[in-house]
Amino acid sequence: MDISSYDHEQLEGVCADIRERILEVVSKNGGHLSSTLGATELIVAMHKVFDSKKDPFIFDVSHQAYAHKLLTDRWDDFDTLRQFGGMCGYTKPSECEDDYFVAGHSSTSISLGVGAAKAIALKGEQDERIPVAMIGDGSISAGMAYEALNELGDSKYPMIIILNDNEMSIAKPIGAISRMLSSAMAGPFYQKFKKKTESFVDNFGEGAHYIAKRFEESFKLITPGILFEEMGIEYIGPIDGHDLKSLIETYEMARNIGGPVIIHTQTTKGKGYEIAEGQHEKWHGVGPFDRASGNANKKSGPKSATQIFTDALLHLAKNDQKVVGVTAAMPSGTGLTELMETYPERFWDVAIAEQHAVTSMAAMAKEGFKPFVTIYSTFLQRGYDQVIHDTCLMDLPVVFALDRAGIVGEDGETHQGVFDISFLRAIPNMTLFAPRDEKSMHQALGFAAEYEHPCSVRYPRGSFTDVKLPTSIPFELAKSQLLISTESDILFIGYGNGVGRAAKTMESMDEPVSLLDLRFVKPLDEAMLIRMAQKHSRWFVFSDSSAMGGVGSAILEFLAKESITGIDVTTFEYSDAFITHGNTTLVEESLGLLPEQLAQRVTVSVQ
Amino acid sequence: MDISSYDHEQLEGVCADIRERILEVVSKNGGHLSSTLGATELIVAMHKVFDSKKDPFIFDVSHQAYAHKLLTDRWDDFDTLRQFGGMCGYTKPSECEDDYFVAGHSSTSISLGVGAAKAIALKGEQDERIPVAMIGDGSISAGMAYEALNELGDSKYPMIIILNDNEMSIAKPIGAISRMLSSAMAGPFYQKFKKKTESFVDNFGEGAHYIAKRFEESFKLITPGILFEEMGIEYIGPIDGHDLKSLIETYEMARNIGGPVIIHTQTTKGKGYEIAEGQHEKWHGVGPFDRASGNANKKSGPKSATQIFTDALLHLAKNDQKVVGVTAAMPSGTGLTELMETYPERFWDVAIAEQHAVTSMAAMAKEGFKPFVTIYSTFLQRGYDQVIHDTCLMDLPVVFALDRAGIVGEDGETHQGVFDISFLRAIPNMTLFAPRDEKSMHQALGFAAEYEHPCSVRYPRGSFTDVKLPTSIPFELAKSQLLISTESDILFIGYGNGVGRAAKTMESMDEPVSLLDLRFVKPLDEAMLIRMAQKHSRWFVFSDSSAMGGVGSAILEFLAKESITGIDVTTFEYSDAFITHGNTTLVEESLGLLPEQLAQRVTVSVQ
Repeated sequence: MDISSYDHEQLEGVCADIRERILEVVSKNGGHLSSTLGATELIVAMHKVFDSKKDPFIFDVSHQAYAHKLLTDRWDDFDTLRQFGGMCGYTKPSECEDDYFVAGHSSTSISLGVGAAKAIALKGEQDERIPVAMIGDGSISAGMAYEALNELGDSKYPMIIILNDNEMSIAKPIGAISRMLSSAMAGPFYQKFKKKTESFVDNFGEGAHYIAKRFEESFKLITPGILFEEMGIEYIGPIDGHDLKSLIETYEMARNIGGPVIIHTQTTKGKGYEIAEGQHEKWHGVGPFDRASGNANKKSGPKSATQIFTDALLHLAKNDQKVVGVTAAMPSGTGLTELMETYPERFWDVAIAEQHAVTSMAAMAKEGFKPFVTIYSTFLQRGYDQVIHDTCLMDLPVVFALDRAGIVGEDGETHQGVFDISFLRAIPNMTLFAPRDEKSMHQALGFAAEYEHPCSVRYPRGSFTDVKLPTSIPFELAKSQLLISTESDILFIGYGNGVGRAAKTMESMDEPVSLLDLRFVKPLDEAMLIRMAQKHSRWFVFSDSSAMGGVGSAILEFLAKESITGIDVTTFEYSDAFITHGNTTLVEESLGLLPEQLAQRVTVSVQ
Repeated sequence: MDISSYDHEQLEGVCADIRERILEVVSKNGGHLSSTLGATELIVAMHKVFDSKKDPFIFDVSHQAYAHKLLTDRWDDFDTLRQFGGMCGYTKPSECEDDYFVAGHSSTSISLGVGAAKAIALKGEQDERIPVAMIGDGSISAGMAYEALNELGDSKYPMIIILNDNEMSIAKPIGAISRMLSSAMAGPFYQKFKKKTESFVDNFGEGAHYIAKRFEESFKLITPGILFEEMGIEYIGPIDGHDLKSLIETYEMARNIGGPVIIHTQTTKGKGYEIAEGQHEKWHGVGPFDRASGNANKKSGPKSATQIFTDALLHLAKNDQKVVGVTAAMPSGTGLTELMETYPERFWDVAIAEQHAVTSMAAMAKEGFKPFVTIYSTFLQRGYDQVIHDTCLMDLPVVFALDRAGIVGEDGETHQGVFDISFLRAIPNMTLFAPRDEKSMHQALGFAAEYEHPCSVRYPRGSFTDVKLPTSIPFELAKSQLLISTESDILFIGYGNGVGRAAKTMESMDEPVSLLDLRFVKPLDEAMLIRMAQKHSRWFVFSDSSAMGGVGSAILEFLAKESITGIDVTTFEYSDAFITHGNTTLVEESLGLLPEQLAQRVTVSVQ
């Protein structure tokens, strides 16, 4: 839709239509709601002033970019949002060339803009193109945003940063930057003060020029923009992010500055859907809901792994004052909300700051506390060096509680929690284990709380696979649990939620197999594996993780080290490709990972 | 050495003795010189005012902490600095309890301080203990420092940050923050302006109180401290970092503030050793040298892998305008200096900002350029998510050129480049390969320059192992080179510098073996491996990398996938432990990795 020639009234109409379409689809499919509703005018104005066919439109995290999708030939297909085979919930160049980059993790936009600006300068296209990055006030707390601002302010590439300040990021705003942005000093006082001081300078006489320059700088102090100005980036704002006219004027002005500019806009999350307006975390990401009432359509299912984690950690925190914890801006997602409410002095949200979250907890461990870093598997990638250099090298008892390990469903590629075993297993002093159900989660966390070294425990999004199996025994270092022992040549080895998948696969098979709950992928239960090698020669590995360097790989390494040959090991972990979004069952089916498909693969393989 | 009761003269004497001892040992052993000389007074004053037995003394990167080592019962042992079995070049709690944390990577200190401060608050020890973190102006550019400041400024834990501003970090100062710190506005003008404005406020009359408050804030503007003040952290400075008296006074004042304070000190790198004073990169880390002349004692050895990389990249950059590159504050270490001088518009130093380095280059790749991210293997851990989420998910042709892959010698544990294969191999779309000598480095980079997907090439610190082998053939995707083919049952598989080690091992053996230069660990040369499996059943893998998830693991996964059993694979990669510092040969000997030791292990194993 080319809206570059639209007048004000037409643009207002476009905004209304976009909101209607977003509400229509998100209430049906689920998705990100409040941030994308709030950013509607910001994006419509972008398309009015800039051209996504040539200017890089860079959306930070990009869950707020639905309006952009709708304006770039995806109005009808928007029905398929976040569905398997349908439209991605984030920007994705392979879906549409108007999407400059993939983004699902936060705070990459300014770096991408700086890279694009360098390319534009080298290609001599500065008169024709300019990167436009949109970033939320939550995302700007992450270190990589600052790293990029630090270079940008120094090298002064033309670039526009639209700061979408809805004063709440995903959860409550956290940190000094956020507080500064929402500073009460902004606004009318600025004008009054400026006028008074100007007249003062006029009458100052000797030295006035020098002093005047200082005052000019001091004006900036009373806007929230000082931090950016100090870094060498022009600051405009704050302006009303729902006022199309002033947005368009400001964007045009910013384009003509010829250097880096940050436009501070203030928006209301959920704007246009009264029930969601101004709500903090609740309407950020939603499942299908009833528009009239705002009530979720979802029937309540079995208890989620996250909820079980919360219960277990609450129990531990109640009995041990040394238990502390941290989340990087995902209190609800990681199940930490209740802990922060119950023990506010021991559980922290440190904003989108995974590196700092890990390292500050390492220091607490050194001081004798028992920290739980609660984090999505995919976001721990942001704190990887801190796990190695600050935690494991010091051999400190930090627990990494990895939520969303495995396939995450509708969020898709950017959020799949599939690499953690591969990247954590290689770190010395690290211990890796996983529960398979509610009881074993309690036991696993009980073990973690007592364990005196770094460790990581992973569990899936949603609920554990529901199967009937022998009851879980307490966790003991490097001890597996043999759940089913048969005389069959076939052994199923499950890890974490893979145990349930293995059991389901068994149910689809005629022949009996043995089933081992591995529990620890590092260190392995070597004695048990040697016993198993004497009994079974066809091993199948079930785990919601990447095959390369994963659970099967650990087992192969062990067998090689022991020079045990003649065991045929097949892993049903994920093969070497990024995994698409959509309903988890459909995604798994596409990968041939449903129990009935796996049963078929086992049967064929052992024939 | 308890210096808490020393008078000024005695303290000056201590400083002189420390400098003498540092020069004595570093000129003999090599080590970090200029930053540690420059920080002498800062550290002596720390020990005068605070107590490292109770206050957490946190040294960022910690290469500047030699004075601290000397003041904490390590005067005599300091002779063994950086030697195998001797004293570590960085702080290390297992060496001395006065060392609060391990640090070799930069910018962790403020996070550690925040963690310590939280622990102190919870334990109710705020009247007895306070974290004191020392950080350089170079280190403060990294994102994790900002993440920590963001929480600190909001939560206001008592903590002292000593900013050691020597205006140069390792290389030239980079970025907006650095420029701001060294702002010419600092200094005498501040006092003059403050006085003038105060008298103005006195005469202002109506509204004076309100305006006065604004002016008070505006004073801060003309110090470099505004950024920190804006974040809610008290700022004191800049003060002369070689003036013991004012340092001690300032530290004492800061301790009494009861909140977070940053003390901005200005120091001269190399202070006290005239030849090194004020030098940028040259005297940062040095080998043994002659004190009188400043000349290095090192005899020139074979060309380093870094130098070969520089030559090869210069050649590529000359012939292809699309070749660009980045370093995160290590231009000399990564061999980028000459490229930045020759093609200043295409090669950048983005400061200590690995995350931003990776992601900004991903955007350049999207724009049609061919970016080389030149980085130490160990520092890529800081940009891991950016490799996954911003580069590989987009399948962009960024080349990760990993220097210092393998054992790095004297820097030790924190710097070993051993995990890269394990953490990169699991990422879809990533290709991994390695050269074994000068010619193959040129060929490998030639391949990388043409390759249209993300790839990573690794090479060792120092020079490649010097062996006589068939000449290297051009690199072709997933193609190995069979160097020696025999009828022996034994196959040696080398990867990168491991090829040289394998060849050296052969030289120490009586029996003939075959030798394969694997070249690509991802994707593997599957056809060749199948051929090899038909000829040889005893495989030995040589690679300077972690065994878990490493090269041997990749081979085992392939054999398992193909259901090829009966091959006995032994890997001579690093086992699961952090690797200590010292002369590389001595370290390798301690791990049993010298060629003659490996030959022995092979012989025993095949008997």
